[in-house]
Amino acid sequence: MKRITFLLVAVVTLALAIAVTVPASLRAYQAAAPIFLTNIPPGYRDWKLISVAHEEGNLNSFAAVLGNEIAIKAYRDGKLPFPDGSIIAALHYSHVSSEENNKVFGRSQSFVAGDATNVQFMVKDSKKYSSTGGWGFGHFKDGKPGDEAFMKTCFPCHQQTKARDLVFTRYAP
Amino acid sequence: MKRITFLLVAVVTLALAIAVTVPASLRAYQAAAPIFLTNIPPGYRDWKLISVAHEEGNLNSFAAVLGNEIAIKAYRDGKLPFPDGSIIAALHYSHVSSEENNKVFGRSQSFVAGDATNVQFMVKDSKKYSSTGGWGFGHFKDGKPGDEAFMKTCFPCHQQTKARDLVFTRYAP
Repeated sequence: MKRITFLLVAVVTLALAIAVTVPASLRAYQAAAPIFLTNIPPGYRDWKLISVAHEEGNLNSFAAVLGNEIAIKAYRDGKLPFPDGSIIAALHYSHVSSEENNKVFGRSQSFVAGDATNVQFMVKDSKKYSSTGGWGFGHFKDGKPGDEAFMKTCFPCHQQTKARDLVFTRYAP
Repeated sequence: MKRITFLLVAVVTLALAIAVTVPASLRAYQAAAPIFLTNIPPGYRDWKLISVAHEEGNLNSFAAVLGNEIAIKAYRDGKLPFPDGSIIAALHYSHVSSEENNKVFGRSQSFVAGDATNVQFMVKDSKKYSSTGGWGFGHFKDGKPGDEAFMKTCFPCHQQTKARDLVFTRYAP
């Protein structure tokens, strides 16, 4: 009995020692279920169009949604889930009234893309991002990635469109 | 004097005869100052993004504006006028509320591209389209070009943005 107690105490002590010794940053990394993009996928501004979008309310945003070749092919083939390597980019701008266009039209009706607000990405890698439905999420404002708290809001929202492999945007003809 | 009168009468008679003989369609063609596109430029759905646009009011439209390589280069270089060979395409869709997105967001804020309504083009050819500022205009609904009366409305409107070589859309970053 004494022996077992000793062994238990020894094991607990060892576990505590390891917990204290392993750097906090490493533990945070190991515990983190979702992995987010820290770098902007290169060349995305040259990709093909998937569709456009507009959010009213607090966002007041205008989006052009583009895809790399793998994503575009999947969209055009109508195949789900998206294959590994697919990348979807949402280029967001402020949705602003165009005074110069309205002058020509003779009435206030024209809205255009204002300042770039952010660029968001979804990168398909079913192994690397297995904990977030196979998608790695990215959000970049002025070239800098969103913080972890913000990035944790991507997956729960996108997960609600599971029937379309977590992707909201449909392909425009 | 008799001879001159005879000659004059002969010339006028000949001119009238020609005017009556030349088919009406050919005369209309010769008189037409602007020439409009009758064929859709191939491959435009794969072109790169210039920007997005949204028109309220009667139009209620959503646009993705794309450009061929020559147009995109001119935009990126910030050079005006656009060189010959530039083609700009405006893919228009109806601007529709997305019920499926709103359900996820928990409020009515999301608008997406609905049905394709038309595709419009501007093709730069400073000789061929010299009478309309060097641009040939195109409008296709269900693959069919707009009629002449409608097409005649393009140039007078675009002419109002002469400072930007008749092009309304600015390049989105």
